[in-house]
Amino acid sequence: MSLVFHERVGLNGRRISPFSWRIRYAFAHKGLEPEVIPTRFADVQRVRDLSGQHFTPIIEHDGTVVHETWRIACHLEDHFPSRPSLFDGAAGRGATRFVNIWSDTVLAPALRPQFYADFINVLDPGDRRYFRETRERQLGMTLEEHCVDRDARLPEVAAVLAPLQRTLAEQPFLAGATPAYVDYIVFSVFQWARVGSPRDVLALLDGVAAVRDWRSRMAGLYGGMGDRFALYPTGDEA
Amino acid sequence: MSLVFHERVGLNGRRISPFSWRIRYAFAHKGLEPEVIPTRFADVQRVRDLSGQHFTPIIEHDGTVVHETWRIACHLEDHFPSRPSLFDGAAGRGATRFVNIWSDTVLAPALRPQFYADFINVLDPGDRRYFRETRERQLGMTLEEHCVDRDARLPEVAAVLAPLQRTLAEQPFLAGATPAYVDYIVFSVFQWARVGSPRDVLALLDGVAAVRDWRSRMAGLYGGMGDRFALYPTGDEA
Repeated sequence: MSLVFHERVGLNGRRISPFSWRIRYAFAHKGLEPEVIPTRFADVQRVRDLSGQHFTPIIEHDGTVVHETWRIACHLEDHFPSRPSLFDGAAGRGATRFVNIWSDTVLAPALRPQFYADFINVLDPGDRRYFRETRERQLGMTLEEHCVDRDARLPEVAAVLAPLQRTLAEQPFLAGATPAYVDYIVFSVFQWARVGSPRDVLALLDGVAAVRDWRSRMAGLYGGMGDRFALYPTGDEA
Repeated sequence: MSLVFHERVGLNGRRISPFSWRIRYAFAHKGLEPEVIPTRFADVQRVRDLSGQHFTPIIEHDGTVVHETWRIACHLEDHFPSRPSLFDGAAGRGATRFVNIWSDTVLAPALRPQFYADFINVLDPGDRRYFRETRERQLGMTLEEHCVDRDARLPEVAAVLAPLQRTLAEQPFLAGATPAYVDYIVFSVFQWARVGSPRDVLALLDGVAAVRDWRSRMAGLYGGMGDRFALYPTGDEA
Protein backbone atom coordinates (compact mmCIF):
# COMPACT_ATOMS: atom_id res chain seq x y z
CA MET A 1 0.00 0.00 0.00
CA SER A 2 1.50 3.33 -0.96
CA LEU A 3 0.51 6.62 0.55
CA VAL A 4 2.13 9.94 -0.26
CA PHE A 5 1.35 13.34 1.30
CA HIS A 6 2.33 16.44 -0.65
CA GLU A 7 2.51 18.88 2.24
CA ARG A 8 3.04 22.64 2.00
CA VAL A 9 6.26 23.82 3.61
CA GLY A 10 7.87 27.18 4.24
CA LEU A 11 11.16 28.41 5.64
CA ASN A 12 13.41 25.58 6.77
CA GLY A 13 10.75 22.91 6.76
CA ARG A 14 8.14 24.88 8.67
CA ARG A 15 4.58 23.63 8.25
CA ILE A 16 2.70 26.78 7.35
CA SER A 17 -0.61 25.81 5.75
CA PRO A 18 -3.84 25.27 7.67
CA PHE A 19 -5.01 22.93 4.92
CA SER A 20 -1.94 20.72 5.15
CA TRP A 21 -2.01 20.84 8.97
CA ARG A 22 -5.51 19.39 9.18
CA ILE A 23 -4.54 16.52 6.85
CA ARG A 24 -1.34 15.90 8.84
CA TYR A 25 -3.50 15.47 11.94
CA ALA A 26 -6.01 13.34 10.00
CA PHE A 27 -3.24 10.91 9.00
CA ALA A 28 -2.11 10.72 12.64
CA HIS A 29 -5.70 10.15 13.80
CA LYS A 30 -5.96 7.24 11.42
CA GLY A 31 -2.57 5.86 12.51
CA LEU A 32 -1.20 6.27 8.99
CA GLU A 33 2.34 7.34 8.15
CA PRO A 34 2.53 8.49 4.56
CA GLU A 35 5.66 9.36 2.69
CA VAL A 36 5.80 13.14 3.02
CA ILE A 37 6.91 15.30 0.09
CA PRO A 38 7.57 18.84 1.31
CA THR A 39 6.15 21.21 -1.29
CA ARG A 40 6.96 24.88 -1.65
CA PHE A 41 4.97 27.28 -3.83
CA ALA A 42 7.98 27.12 -6.18
CA ASP A 43 7.32 23.42 -6.71
CA VAL A 44 4.09 24.30 -8.54
CA GLN A 45 5.03 22.53 -11.78
CA ARG A 46 5.36 19.20 -10.00
CA VAL A 47 1.98 19.85 -8.33
CA ARG A 48 0.31 20.70 -11.65
CA ASP A 49 1.84 17.68 -13.41
CA LEU A 50 0.52 15.45 -10.66
CA SER A 51 -2.95 16.87 -10.09
CA GLY A 52 -3.90 19.32 -12.82
CA GLN A 53 -4.15 22.20 -10.37
CA HIS A 54 -1.83 24.13 -8.06
CA PHE A 55 -3.17 23.81 -4.51
CA THR A 56 -1.81 21.62 -1.72
CA PRO A 57 -2.35 19.36 0.13
CA ILE A 58 -2.49 16.47 -2.31
CA ILE A 59 -2.34 12.79 -1.51
CA GLU A 60 -1.50 9.78 -3.63
CA HIS A 61 -3.00 6.48 -2.51
CA ASP A 62 -2.00 3.42 -4.50
CA GLY A 63 -1.83 5.55 -7.62
CA THR A 64 -5.01 7.55 -7.04
CA VAL A 65 -4.33 11.26 -6.75
CA VAL A 66 -6.70 13.26 -4.52
CA HIS A 67 -6.64 17.03 -4.07
CA GLU A 68 -8.84 19.50 -2.19
CA THR A 69 -8.56 19.19 1.54
CA TRP A 70 -12.13 18.11 2.32
CA ARG A 71 -12.03 15.46 -0.40
CA ILE A 72 -8.76 14.13 1.02
CA ALA A 73 -10.26 13.81 4.49
CA CYS A 74 -13.27 11.98 3.07
CA HIS A 75 -10.99 9.72 1.03
CA LEU A 76 -9.04 8.74 4.15
CA GLU A 77 -12.27 8.11 6.04
CA ASP A 78 -13.81 6.04 3.26
CA HIS A 79 -10.70 4.02 2.36
CA PHE A 80 -9.56 3.23 5.90
CA PRO A 81 -12.88 2.36 7.57
CA SER A 82 -11.33 0.04 10.13
CA ARG A 83 -9.09 2.79 11.48
CA PRO A 84 -10.33 5.45 13.93
CA SER A 85 -13.08 7.51 12.35
CA LEU A 86 -12.62 11.17 11.51
CA PHE A 87 -16.39 11.78 11.77
CA ASP A 88 -18.06 8.88 13.67
CA GLY A 89 -20.89 8.74 11.15
CA ALA A 90 -22.96 10.62 8.60
CA ALA A 91 -24.22 13.42 10.83
CA GLY A 92 -20.70 13.93 12.16
CA ARG A 93 -19.41 14.26 8.63
CA GLY A 94 -22.20 16.65 7.64
CA ALA A 95 -21.85 18.85 10.71
CA THR A 96 -18.07 18.82 10.30
CA ARG A 97 -18.51 20.14 6.77
CA PHE A 98 -20.46 23.11 8.14
CA VAL A 99 -17.73 23.78 10.72
CA ASN A 100 -15.13 23.42 7.94
CA ILE A 101 -16.86 26.10 5.89
CA TRP A 102 -17.31 28.32 8.95
CA SER A 103 -13.63 27.93 9.83
CA ASP A 104 -12.40 28.84 6.36
CA THR A 105 -14.86 31.66 5.61
CA VAL A 106 -15.51 33.21 9.04
CA LEU A 107 -12.75 32.25 11.51
CA ALA A 108 -9.75 32.45 9.16
CA PRO A 109 -10.64 35.89 7.70
CA ALA A 110 -11.14 37.20 11.24
CA LEU A 111 -7.72 35.99 12.35
CA ARG A 112 -5.82 36.87 9.20
CA PRO A 113 -5.41 40.63 9.85
CA GLN A 114 -3.81 39.72 13.14
CA PHE A 115 -0.79 38.04 11.61
CA TYR A 116 -0.69 38.03 7.83
CA ALA A 117 1.99 40.67 7.42
CA ASP A 118 4.30 38.58 9.63
CA PHE A 119 3.42 35.37 7.84
CA ILE A 120 5.60 36.15 4.84
CA ASN A 121 8.63 35.60 7.09
CA VAL A 122 7.79 31.91 7.53
CA LEU A 123 7.73 31.28 3.80
CA ASP A 124 10.62 29.89 1.88
CA PRO A 125 12.52 32.95 0.57
CA GLY A 126 11.93 31.80 -3.01
CA ASP A 127 8.15 31.82 -2.38
CA ARG A 128 7.76 35.28 -0.84
CA ARG A 129 7.36 37.34 -3.99
CA TYR A 130 4.72 35.00 -5.41
CA PHE A 131 2.87 34.99 -2.08
CA ARG A 132 2.88 38.77 -1.74
CA GLU A 133 1.76 39.37 -5.33
CA THR A 134 -1.08 36.85 -5.30
CA ARG A 135 -2.36 37.63 -1.81
CA GLU A 136 -2.22 41.40 -2.30
CA ARG A 137 -4.17 41.02 -5.52
CA GLN A 138 -6.83 38.96 -3.70
CA LEU A 139 -6.96 41.35 -0.73
CA GLY A 140 -6.92 44.49 -2.89
CA MET A 141 -4.27 46.01 -0.63
CA THR A 142 -0.80 45.32 0.73
CA LEU A 143 -0.29 42.75 3.50
CA GLU A 144 0.72 45.59 5.79
CA GLU A 145 -2.42 47.60 5.02
CA HIS A 146 -4.51 44.47 5.70
CA CYS A 147 -3.00 44.26 9.18
CA VAL A 148 -2.65 47.91 10.10
CA ASP A 149 -5.61 48.12 12.50
CA ARG A 150 -5.17 44.69 14.04
CA ASP A 151 -5.35 45.98 17.61
CA ALA A 152 -8.63 47.77 16.90
CA ARG A 153 -9.97 44.59 15.33
CA LEU A 154 -9.46 42.39 18.39
CA PRO A 155 -13.11 42.73 19.51
CA GLU A 156 -14.17 41.35 16.12
CA VAL A 157 -11.94 38.33 16.74
CA ALA A 158 -13.42 37.85 20.20
CA ALA A 159 -16.93 37.84 18.73
CA VAL A 160 -16.03 35.19 16.16
CA LEU A 161 -14.32 33.05 18.81
CA ALA A 162 -17.24 33.24 21.24
CA PRO A 163 -19.08 30.08 20.11
CA LEU A 164 -15.78 28.14 20.18
CA GLN A 165 -15.08 29.36 23.68
CA ARG A 166 -18.56 28.45 24.88
CA THR A 167 -18.38 24.98 23.36
CA LEU A 168 -14.89 24.22 24.65
CA ALA A 169 -15.86 25.42 28.11
CA GLU A 170 -18.35 22.53 28.16
CA GLN A 171 -16.49 19.74 26.42
CA PRO A 172 -12.79 19.01 26.03
CA PHE A 173 -12.82 18.85 22.23
CA LEU A 174 -15.17 20.07 19.50
CA ALA A 175 -15.86 16.39 18.80
CA GLY A 176 -16.67 15.81 22.47
CA ALA A 177 -14.52 13.72 24.80
CA THR A 178 -11.85 12.98 22.19
CA PRO A 179 -10.70 14.90 19.10
CA ALA A 180 -11.80 14.27 15.54
CA TYR A 181 -11.50 15.97 12.18
CA VAL A 182 -13.70 18.87 13.28
CA ASP A 183 -11.01 19.73 15.85
CA TYR A 184 -8.18 19.39 13.34
CA ILE A 185 -9.84 21.87 10.98
CA VAL A 186 -10.34 24.56 13.60
CA PHE A 187 -6.96 23.93 15.23
CA SER A 188 -5.23 24.22 11.84
CA VAL A 189 -6.45 27.81 11.55
CA PHE A 190 -4.97 28.67 14.94
CA GLN A 191 -1.79 26.78 14.05
CA TRP A 192 -1.47 28.84 10.84
CA ALA A 193 -1.63 31.99 12.97
CA ARG A 194 0.69 30.53 15.61
CA VAL A 195 3.44 29.48 13.21
CA GLY A 196 2.98 32.62 11.15
CA SER A 197 3.54 35.31 13.73
CA PRO A 198 5.07 36.13 17.10
CA ARG A 199 1.73 37.73 18.03
CA ASP A 200 -0.48 35.36 20.04
CA VAL A 201 -4.02 36.58 19.59
CA LEU A 202 -5.36 34.28 22.27
CA ALA A 203 -2.98 35.89 24.77
CA LEU A 204 -4.30 39.34 23.83
CA LEU A 205 -7.96 38.52 24.49
CA ASP A 206 -9.89 38.02 27.70
CA GLY A 207 -12.49 35.31 28.00
CA VAL A 208 -10.84 32.72 25.73
CA ALA A 209 -9.25 30.48 28.34
CA ALA A 210 -11.03 27.35 27.10
CA VAL A 211 -9.85 27.97 23.53
CA ARG A 212 -6.27 28.51 24.77
CA ASP A 213 -6.37 25.33 26.82
CA TRP A 214 -7.80 23.34 23.91
CA ARG A 215 -5.22 24.77 21.52
CA SER A 216 -2.42 23.60 23.84
CA ARG A 217 -3.90 20.14 24.15
CA MET A 218 -4.33 19.94 20.37
CA ALA A 219 -0.67 20.88 19.82
CA GLY A 220 0.30 18.14 22.27
CA LEU A 221 -1.55 15.34 20.46
CA TYR A 222 0.31 12.61 18.61
CA GLY A 223 3.55 13.17 20.44
CA GLY A 224 3.39 16.96 20.33
CA MET A 225 2.58 17.18 16.63
CA GLY A 226 1.90 20.91 16.80
CA ASP A 227 5.40 21.63 18.04
CA ARG A 228 7.29 19.11 15.93
CA PHE A 229 8.41 21.75 13.44
CA ALA A 230 9.85 25.19 13.92
CA LEU A 231 7.53 28.02 14.77
CA TYR A 232 7.97 31.73 13.95
CA PRO A 233 11.65 32.53 13.49
CA THR A 234 13.50 34.31 16.25
CA GLY A 235 16.87 35.91 15.71
CA ASP A 236 18.96 35.42 12.64
CA GLU A 237 17.27 32.69 10.65
CA ALA A 238 17.23 33.66 6.97
CA MET B 1 -43.49 3.78 29.09
CA SER B 2 -44.68 7.31 29.65
CA LEU B 3 -43.39 10.30 27.77
CA VAL B 4 -44.67 13.85 28.20
CA PHE B 5 -43.57 16.95 26.28
CA HIS B 6 -44.25 20.34 27.84
CA GLU B 7 -44.19 22.45 24.70
CA ARG B 8 -44.34 26.24 24.51
CA VAL B 9 -47.46 27.53 22.76
CA GLY B 10 -48.73 30.94 21.75
CA LEU B 11 -51.88 32.34 20.19
CA ASN B 12 -54.42 29.64 19.38
CA GLY B 13 -52.02 26.73 19.72
CA ARG B 14 -49.25 28.20 17.60
CA ARG B 15 -45.83 26.67 18.17
CA ILE B 16 -43.63 29.69 18.74
CA SER B 17 -40.43 28.60 20.45
CA PRO B 18 -37.26 27.54 18.63
CA PHE B 19 -36.33 25.41 21.64
CA SER B 20 -39.61 23.50 21.64
CA TRP B 21 -39.53 23.18 17.84
CA ARG B 22 -36.21 21.40 17.82
CA ILE B 23 -37.42 18.91 20.43
CA ARG B 24 -40.69 18.39 18.52
CA TYR B 25 -38.58 17.39 15.50
CA ALA B 26 -36.28 15.25 17.67
CA PHE B 27 -39.27 13.25 18.92
CA ALA B 28 -40.43 12.75 15.32
CA HIS B 29 -36.91 11.71 14.25
CA LYS B 30 -36.93 9.07 16.96
CA GLY B 31 -40.44 7.93 16.00
CA LEU B 32 -41.75 8.86 19.45
CA GLU B 33 -45.17 10.34 20.13
CA PRO B 34 -45.23 11.92 23.57
CA GLU B 35 -48.26 13.29 25.31
CA VAL B 36 -48.04 17.00 24.56
CA ILE B 37 -48.92 19.57 27.23
CA PRO B 38 -49.22 23.00 25.60
CA THR B 39 -47.57 25.49 27.92
CA ARG B 40 -48.01 29.23 27.86
CA PHE B 41 -45.79 31.66 29.77
CA ALA B 42 -48.80 32.09 32.11
CA ASP B 43 -48.49 28.41 33.06
CA VAL B 44 -45.20 29.15 34.81
CA GLN B 45 -46.28 27.86 38.20
CA ARG B 46 -46.94 24.40 36.81
CA VAL B 47 -43.53 24.54 35.11
CA ARG B 48 -41.78 25.58 38.32
CA ASP B 49 -43.59 22.95 40.39
CA LEU B 50 -42.49 20.30 37.91
CA SER B 51 -38.91 21.30 37.23
CA GLY B 52 -37.71 23.95 39.67
CA GLN B 53 -37.20 26.49 36.89
CA HIS B 54 -39.34 28.36 34.38
CA PHE B 55 -38.03 27.52 30.89
CA THR B 56 -39.62 25.17 28.35
CA PRO B 57 -39.30 22.68 26.78
CA ILE B 58 -39.42 20.08 29.52
CA ILE B 59 -39.94 16.36 29.15
CA GLU B 60 -41.07 13.71 31.58
CA HIS B 61 -39.92 10.17 30.85
CA ASP B 62 -41.20 7.47 33.18
CA GLY B 63 -41.13 9.96 36.03
CA THR B 64 -37.78 11.54 35.24
CA VAL B 65 -38.08 15.26 34.53
CA VAL B 66 -35.54 16.74 32.12
CA HIS B 67 -35.25 20.42 31.25
CA GLU B 68 -32.82 22.45 29.11
CA THR B 69 -33.14 21.74 25.43
CA TRP B 70 -29.70 20.23 24.82
CA ARG B 71 -30.04 17.94 27.82
CA ILE B 72 -33.44 16.79 26.53
CA ALA B 73 -31.97 15.93 23.12
CA CYS B 74 -29.14 13.98 24.77
CA HIS B 75 -31.65 12.21 27.03
CA LEU B 76 -33.68 11.06 24.04
CA GLU B 77 -30.54 9.92 22.25
CA ASP B 78 -29.19 8.03 25.25
CA HIS B 79 -32.49 6.44 26.35
CA PHE B 80 -33.71 5.38 22.91
CA PRO B 81 -30.51 4.01 21.37
CA SER B 82 -32.28 1.58 19.08
CA ARG B 83 -34.24 4.37 17.41
CA PRO B 84 -32.77 6.60 14.68
CA SER B 85 -29.82 8.53 16.04
CA LEU B 86 -29.92 12.31 16.46
CA PHE B 87 -26.12 12.50 16.16
CA ASP B 88 -24.74 9.27 14.60
CA GLY B 89 -21.93 9.12 17.15
CA ALA B 90 -19.67 11.05 19.47
CA ALA B 91 -18.14 13.46 16.96
CA GLY B 92 -21.60 14.16 15.56
CA ARG B 93 -22.85 15.03 19.03
CA GLY B 94 -19.84 17.20 19.76
CA ALA B 95 -19.97 19.08 16.46
CA THR B 96 -23.74 19.47 16.83
CA ARG B 97 -23.17 21.11 20.20
CA PHE B 98 -20.93 23.71 18.54
CA VAL B 99 -23.59 24.36 15.87
CA ASN B 100 -26.21 24.57 18.65
CA ILE B 101 -24.22 27.28 20.41
CA TRP B 102 -23.56 29.09 17.12
CA SER B 103 -27.28 28.96 16.27
CA ASP B 104 -28.39 30.37 19.60
CA THR B 105 -25.66 33.00 20.05
CA VAL B 106 -24.88 34.09 16.47
CA LEU B 107 -27.73 33.13 14.11
CA ALA B 108 -30.68 33.89 16.40
CA PRO B 109 -29.46 37.36 17.47
CA ALA B 110 -28.84 38.21 13.81
CA LEU B 111 -32.39 37.22 12.83
CA ARG B 112 -34.17 38.65 15.83
CA PRO B 113 -34.22 42.33 14.77
CA GLN B 114 -35.91 41.21 11.58
CA PHE B 115 -39.08 40.00 13.27
CA TYR B 116 -39.16 40.44 17.03
CA ALA B 117 -41.58 43.37 17.12
CA ASP B 118 -44.07 41.27 15.14
CA PHE B 119 -43.52 38.20 17.29
CA ILE B 120 -45.59 39.53 20.16
CA ASN B 121 -48.66 39.02 17.97
CA VAL B 122 -48.19 35.24 17.96
CA LEU B 123 -48.19 35.04 21.72
CA ASP B 124 -51.20 34.15 23.76
CA PRO B 125 -52.77 37.51 24.72
CA GLY B 126 -52.29 36.72 28.40
CA ASP B 127 -48.53 36.31 27.81
CA ARG B 128 -47.81 39.51 25.89
CA ARG B 129 -47.20 41.86 28.79
CA TYR B 130 -44.80 39.44 30.49
CA PHE B 131 -42.97 38.88 27.19
CA ARG B 132 -42.62 42.60 26.45
CA GLU B 133 -41.42 43.47 29.92
CA THR B 134 -38.85 40.71 30.21
CA ARG B 135 -37.51 40.96 26.66
CA GLU B 136 -37.28 44.75 26.73
CA ARG B 137 -35.36 44.56 29.98
CA GLN B 138 -32.92 42.05 28.42
CA LEU B 139 -32.56 44.07 25.22
CA GLY B 140 -32.30 47.40 27.01
CA MET B 141 -34.78 48.94 24.57
CA THR B 142 -38.32 48.43 23.26
CA LEU B 143 -39.07 45.63 20.80
CA GLU B 144 -39.81 48.28 18.19
CA GLU B 145 -36.49 50.05 18.75
CA HIS B 146 -34.73 46.68 18.46
CA CYS B 147 -36.25 46.22 15.00
CA VAL B 148 -36.25 49.77 13.69
CA ASP B 149 -33.30 49.40 11.30
CA ARG B 150 -34.07 45.89 10.14
CA ASP B 151 -33.78 46.75 6.46
CA ALA B 152 -30.34 48.27 6.98
CA ARG B 153 -29.30 45.18 8.92
CA LEU B 154 -30.04 42.71 6.11
CA PRO B 155 -26.38 42.55 4.99
CA GLU B 156 -25.46 41.49 8.52
CA VAL B 157 -27.97 38.64 8.23
CA ALA B 158 -26.56 37.63 4.84
CA ALA B 159 -23.06 37.43 6.32
CA VAL B 160 -24.21 35.20 9.17
CA LEU B 161 -26.13 32.96 6.78
CA ALA B 162 -23.21 32.59 4.35
CA PRO B 163 -21.68 29.41 5.85
CA LEU B 164 -25.15 27.81 5.97
CA GLN B 165 -25.75 28.70 2.34
CA ARG B 166 -22.39 27.31 1.26
CA THR B 167 -22.90 24.06 3.18
CA LEU B 168 -26.45 23.52 1.97
CA ALA B 169 -25.39 24.22 -1.61
CA GLU B 170 -23.18 21.11 -1.33
CA GLN B 171 -25.31 18.72 0.71
CA PRO B 172 -29.06 18.41 1.16
CA PHE B 173 -29.02 18.68 4.95
CA LEU B 174 -26.55 19.97 7.54
CA ALA B 175 -26.21 16.34 8.66
CA GLY B 176 -25.48 15.26 5.09
CA ALA B 177 -27.84 13.15 2.98
CA THR B 178 -30.57 12.97 5.64
CA PRO B 179 -31.51 15.33 8.49
CA ALA B 180 -30.45 14.99 12.10
CA TYR B 181 -30.58 17.08 15.25
CA VAL B 182 -28.11 19.62 13.84
CA ASP B 183 -30.71 20.43 11.17
CA TYR B 184 -33.56 20.65 13.69
CA ILE B 185 -31.64 23.20 15.77
CA VAL B 186 -30.89 25.53 12.88
CA PHE B 187 -34.33 25.05 11.31
CA SER B 188 -36.00 25.88 14.62
CA VAL B 189 -34.44 29.35 14.52
CA PHE B 190 -35.85 29.95 11.04
CA GLN B 191 -39.19 28.50 12.11
CA TRP B 192 -39.30 30.93 15.06
CA ALA B 193 -38.83 33.79 12.61
CA ARG B 194 -41.29 32.28 10.13
CA VAL B 195 -44.14 31.79 12.60
CA GLY B 196 -43.36 35.08 14.31
CA SER B 197 -43.66 37.51 11.43
CA PRO B 198 -45.12 38.08 7.98
CA ARG B 199 -41.64 39.24 6.91
CA ASP B 200 -39.68 36.46 5.20
CA VAL B 201 -36.03 37.38 5.54
CA LEU B 202 -34.94 34.65 3.14
CA ALA B 203 -37.16 36.20 0.46
CA LEU B 204 -35.51 39.60 1.00
CA LEU B 205 -31.95 38.36 0.47
CA ASP B 206 -30.09 37.30 -2.64
CA GLY B 207 -27.77 34.34 -2.60
CA VAL B 208 -29.66 32.21 -0.08
CA ALA B 209 -31.46 29.84 -2.44
CA ALA B 210 -30.00 26.72 -0.84
CA VAL B 211 -31.10 27.85 2.62
CA ARG B 212 -34.62 28.59 1.31
CA ASP B 213 -34.83 25.21 -0.37
CA TRP B 214 -33.58 23.43 2.74
CA ARG B 215 -36.01 25.37 4.95
CA SER B 216 -38.92 24.22 2.76
CA ARG B 217 -37.79 20.61 2.86
CA MET B 218 -37.36 20.79 6.63
CA ALA B 219 -40.91 22.15 7.04
CA GLY B 220 -42.14 19.25 4.91
CA LEU B 221 -40.58 16.50 7.03
CA TYR B 222 -42.70 14.19 9.17
CA GLY B 223 -45.87 14.87 7.25
CA GLY B 224 -45.34 18.60 6.93
CA MET B 225 -44.49 19.17 10.60
CA GLY B 226 -43.44 22.77 10.02
CA ASP B 227 -46.88 23.67 8.68
CA ARG B 228 -49.01 21.61 11.04
CA PHE B 229 -49.83 24.59 13.21
CA ALA B 230 -50.94 28.10 12.34
CA LEU B 231 -48.34 30.58 11.19
CA TYR B 232 -48.42 34.38 11.57
CA PRO B 233 -52.01 35.57 11.92
CA THR B 234 -53.67 37.20 8.97
CA GLY B 235 -56.88 39.14 9.32
CA ASP B 236 -58.99 39.21 12.42
CA GLU B 237 -57.54 36.56 14.70
CA ALA B 238 -57.40 37.94 18.25
